[in-house]
Amino acid sequence: MTQPTPIALAVDFGGTSVKLAAVDPSAHILARTSFDTASAPGVDLWLDAVAAASRTLLSSLPAGAEFSAVGVGVPGFVDFAAGFVHDLANVPGWTAVPLADRLRDRFHLPVAVENDVNAMAAGECAHGAGAGFRDAVFVTLGTGVGGGILINGRLHRGAHSMAGEIGHVSVDLHGPVSPMGIGGVEQYVGNRHIAEYAAARLRRGVSSTLAQACSGNYDALTPKHIAEAAAVGDALALETFDFVAMCLASMLASVSYVLQPEAYIIGGGVANAGPVLFDPLKKHLVQRLSPHFLSRLQILPAALGSDAGLVGCATLAFQAIPA
Amino acid sequence: MTQPTPIALAVDFGGTSVKLAAVDPSAHILARTSFDTASAPGVDLWLDAVAAASRTLLSSLPAGAEFSAVGVGVPGFVDFAAGFVHDLANVPGWTAVPLADRLRDRFHLPVAVENDVNAMAAGECAHGAGAGFRDAVFVTLGTGVGGGILINGRLHRGAHSMAGEIGHVSVDLHGPVSPMGIGGVEQYVGNRHIAEYAAARLRRGVSSTLAQACSGNYDALTPKHIAEAAAVGDALALETFDFVAMCLASMLASVSYVLQPEAYIIGGGVANAGPVLFDPLKKHLVQRLSPHFLSRLQILPAALGSDAGLVGCATLAFQAIPA
Repeated sequence: MTQPTPIALAVDFGGTSVKLAAVDPSAHILARTSFDTASAPGVDLWLDAVAAASRTLLSSLPAGAEFSAVGVGVPGFVDFAAGFVHDLANVPGWTAVPLADRLRDRFHLPVAVENDVNAMAAGECAHGAGAGFRDAVFVTLGTGVGGGILINGRLHRGAHSMAGEIGHVSVDLHGPVSPMGIGGVEQYVGNRHIAEYAAARLRRGVSSTLAQACSGNYDALTPKHIAEAAAVGDALALETFDFVAMCLASMLASVSYVLQPEAYIIGGGVANAGPVLFDPLKKHLVQRLSPHFLSRLQILPAALGSDAGLVGCATLAFQAIPA
Repeated sequence: MTQPTPIALAVDFGGTSVKLAAVDPSAHILARTSFDTASAPGVDLWLDAVAAASRTLLSSLPAGAEFSAVGVGVPGFVDFAAGFVHDLANVPGWTAVPLADRLRDRFHLPVAVENDVNAMAAGECAHGAGAGFRDAVFVTLGTGVGGGILINGRLHRGAHSMAGEIGHVSVDLHGPVSPMGIGGVEQYVGNRHIAEYAAARLRRGVSSTLAQACSGNYDALTPKHIAEAAAVGDALALETFDFVAMCLASMLASVSYVLQPEAYIIGGGVANAGPVLFDPLKKHLVQRLSPHFLSRLQILPAALGSDAGLVGCATLAFQAIPA
């Protein structure tokens, strides 16, 4: 009688929806479901909704299938070792939650609780663009800029589980002030800041197809509009991505001097811009990073798309099973 | 019959002199000697001089004492795993040297070859101000700014043994250009740049006791002059150290967001300035690093002084002995 293949319950907890999947050790998603975050406010209702979703997932698997472990990625600060959620920025009712304990009480399974970006990093580095690297940094470009750091094949969490916050790496001594410091790269290349860079120039009268793309409502401009315009050669859109790439290159060069990873794996909505981001990024890295470091560094787009979180949660769940 | 205490031959290879010591596992320096770097040009003469110095050291130890391992810190790029010296910036004749192999051929002992700053970091973190930390960053402030990173109690060397080059972390997108990038913190707080900051203001007519300290020869100004003037309240000297502290705080905040170490251990000549550096450094970190990170971070002066390199070479030598 052979052992059944272990299956992870992966829970990608977002501010808008909670995505769940049954995932096997090769990162195949066997079944998936989701519920709206707002439909299950607070920890107790959330646990009920996750339990119900887990039954839904099992019902679409062969009879007798069971979960072997649970992995959760949450949008906020987590103490990984304790499985403790300090606080979720955009989800009310999630302060100081011993989530791993609560999940173990409910499911009687090994549990991993990690922040969402580290979970994506674990997924990309185990089964995506980072597979095969021992030392890599996952970067996600969206509303904010997040990071997950792989050292010697394991996530590096630092002294108190907060490492990898590369969006707050400063690129300018005298840059914008935020609660996280001064001149953090996220203040330049977060979605809103990218749109604002182009919008400010449109307001000053720079001519661009972007004015039509947002129907003259500059406040409605998004990085996606700008990426599409750049792809067909709009000068302002190209200038905007060149500026974004310069800021990112400064941060990535700094991270390389600290860590010397083998690769950056770059995902998130802004990374979908493709060559209009990656080409100038490589150009600016030549100016900002010594060839000793740059010649052996790979810059790769993420490969798992919106499944990176689920795959990563499963990866961490399997790692939580005692050997 | 008890085992004799193992003794490391520690070799701190500097651009001016090569310091050697016999060191026990508790980091006690049992004997020390040195020779001028220029007196032994090239690898062969250097090995001869090290061998002669090792005999001098043994002659001052109890009869029958022998070395158990050799640890060398060199001023340049090293591949630690291979014990291979790529290049030493300020020592001619040291390009592409398989130094660990050459030392093993000569001494028939386990050998560790590391760059000098990583060796100091190993010393400080094993036996100095960093003792007891698992995750710490050693910073040395001098001609340049160097770093050594301890993760999980071991030096982090990165993908190709070049990690920890924190002097090249950029603090300004539009800062000075160097072969290592743009706006590296070393371009602001290296010895020469500190002196130049004050000298430029003196030339513009700012009144300060520093003018007398360098006898009106502003090019002769050093960080030591400035630290001494700051300690007795000279306004320009205090302003200079406030600027240095601000630049360092920007870099340290960035490194904290990436790595979240438990502590920074700060050594090198400029660190001897003491409170005139450390007080404004802590003030600027409050502005540049979230309390989530700062409240659990320690900023400590290095404890081993000029022996950090020798102690670190010994630490790495003992680690090279097979278990």
